[in-house]
Amino acid sequence: MSIPVPPLVAACRMNHTGEPLTHTPVWFMRQAGRSLPEYRRVREGIAMLDACMTPDLVTEITLQPVRRYGVDGAVLYSDIVLPLKAAGVDLDIVPGTGPVVAKPVRTAADVDALPELHPDQLEPIAQAVRQLVGELDGLGGPGGVPLIGFAGAPFTLASYLVEGGPSKDHAATKAFIHTDPGLWRALAEKLARVSATFLQVQVENGARVVQLFDSWAGALSLADYREHAMPASASVLAAVGALRGPSTADGLPVPRIHFGVGTGELLGAMGEAGADVVGVDYRVSLRDAAARTRADGTPRALQGNLDPALLGAPPAVLDAAVDAVLEDAAAALGAPAAGGHVFNLGHGVPPGTDPDALLRVVERVHERTSR
Amino acid sequence: MSIPVPPLVAACRMNHTGEPLTHTPVWFMRQAGRSLPEYRRVREGIAMLDACMTPDLVTEITLQPVRRYGVDGAVLYSDIVLPLKAAGVDLDIVPGTGPVVAKPVRTAADVDALPELHPDQLEPIAQAVRQLVGELDGLGGPGGVPLIGFAGAPFTLASYLVEGGPSKDHAATKAFIHTDPGLWRALAEKLARVSATFLQVQVENGARVVQLFDSWAGALSLADYREHAMPASASVLAAVGALRGPSTADGLPVPRIHFGVGTGELLGAMGEAGADVVGVDYRVSLRDAAARTRADGTPRALQGNLDPALLGAPPAVLDAAVDAVLEDAAAALGAPAAGGHVFNLGHGVPPGTDPDALLRVVERVHERTSR
Repeated sequence: MSIPVPPLVAACRMNHTGEPLTHTPVWFMRQAGRSLPEYRRVREGIAMLDACMTPDLVTEITLQPVRRYGVDGAVLYSDIVLPLKAAGVDLDIVPGTGPVVAKPVRTAADVDALPELHPDQLEPIAQAVRQLVGELDGLGGPGGVPLIGFAGAPFTLASYLVEGGPSKDHAATKAFIHTDPGLWRALAEKLARVSATFLQVQVENGARVVQLFDSWAGALSLADYREHAMPASASVLAAVGALRGPSTADGLPVPRIHFGVGTGELLGAMGEAGADVVGVDYRVSLRDAAARTRADGTPRALQGNLDPALLGAPPAVLDAAVDAVLEDAAAALGAPAAGGHVFNLGHGVPPGTDPDALLRVVERVHERTSR
Repeated sequence: MSIPVPPLVAACRMNHTGEPLTHTPVWFMRQAGRSLPEYRRVREGIAMLDACMTPDLVTEITLQPVRRYGVDGAVLYSDIVLPLKAAGVDLDIVPGTGPVVAKPVRTAADVDALPELHPDQLEPIAQAVRQLVGELDGLGGPGGVPLIGFAGAPFTLASYLVEGGPSKDHAATKAFIHTDPGLWRALAEKLARVSATFLQVQVENGARVVQLFDSWAGALSLADYREHAMPASASVLAAVGALRGPSTADGLPVPRIHFGVGTGELLGAMGEAGADVVGVDYRVSLRDAAARTRADGTPRALQGNLDPALLGAPPAVLDAAVDAVLEDAAAALGAPAAGGHVFNLGHGVPPGTDPDALLRVVERVHERTSR
């Protein structure tokens, strides 16, 4: 019995079945969201985190870009701070600012008071995932369109909690790390459990790929990343490795993508943390990323890395940039049919993006890489 | 006749005289400014750009960190947008925000209307530099304390003009570049002349080292940097190379430092643009930076790269971090006496920094590297 493997899963696993890929899979970080008029319509008057806890809305929003673009993966509409909110942390997403935490976490008592997350607190997410998988199995080619689950990495979640919101230099977080590394470790381990539970609920209900977002890891030097951020991220990725879901029939773990912005110097460590796929931002060539992430001579799968700013360029310039990423991927990882490359942007979709530009990218990636 | 060469100049030139350096020179980006109480006192009630055009105030503020820390270089108190303001561009520095431009530059007519800068429009700067050099020659060791002149690189200046202020993703600037590369080139060339004139006034009045700041270059991919930013920066650095000042008696150009944040992938190109010293942010090890900037097997001098966040760490952690930078520098470039390393932060001094932490760094660098 051969279960059809969708291109996204096969590419993440570097074509583990030996069956050549039909094309290079493509999806976009933040593909579900503000750049789509149909999204703005359904979200009107509903707060972000309320929307994330409403299964029908999550289902609809997650499906919108799959319908419009024909992308090879659907990424759950949610937010990295959602599991903290679900666990009872007093925070909100303020439009134009981002997550704002009512009481920043700075002391041992604050770390202690941080609640643990129980899977039942995520029941609306579990329901959304089940609904989505039901729909997605019938879309796309054989094997359906896989749902990509995601979570924030402990360092990034901790930065929001310590700073009280988004930060440019993460000064308070770094001061925390260097002043009380033991307490920091306790905080990071607690957050690793939160992220792992969030991913567990997604995978056990049907997500077939996961992405761990360490949005702010690029603010750390390599030494600090290895010592103070990587261990907790590695726990999350290891926990996911033990989970079973609809894509683990062959005994392999759910493919784990690991991504952060400005992480050129961290790519090797981010792979070592336990990633099957390392996400690359647009600053680093895929060739350099391949050299930096290779483990014992074996290349690791890569995701990326079109500069999102190119989405605002004239069509011919955009086409050439897409082709350049595909050539770079082929030089780094071999022919598309061999897997190993997941096409994506090197960052999230900017809110002002013209959806037609994204459609153009999907069509070009498919056309250029189809056997 | 042997003119004593201050350590900063000798280090930038990789010990060109053959005379071993007495110690590794150290200075800090933004050493003159908000972290000093004596600065906050003299600036009170005076707008930033007004202060920059008042010679006595520029002199006092520039000297403050030299007196307090005993750093090996004084960096002119100014701002990268000052020459635009002096040329007649309607802009201001808004506290808490940064430079804000009244009318963003978007069209051919806007580029055309951008005024050229004449050296006379910088007379207060020229006067400040002359006053400073008079004072600095008597400070420090033999040869005095060199004044470091600086200017913004064309790409960074253009980003302020095109976006109308600071930007996270530089979307409008990148759209400009990709939509009308010819007009972009015209804008960048115009700004290269502005930066070159700003540096010329500083060097001809006595600045002995210059730094070209391309604060935002790290937002570009390497391909875009090479094609759309590097040529104009190279013109500025070439223009400085032709200038003569108090440190060019031996026929060598005024040492040129070239720095940007998040430029790990661009370091090679930033050296090739015509820099004697490449500034490295804290994300990249000096060893990696040396490998990336080596030209025809010859290492290039490097500046950097302590993570400014360490200034908020306990003294023992800070000391260890300083030592780690010095060890990295020695592995990358050889013994301190051979020159090639200018100690600095990997970014500007954060406003909330305790001045005693900076003093501690200066003393430790001097103590650890003295012959």
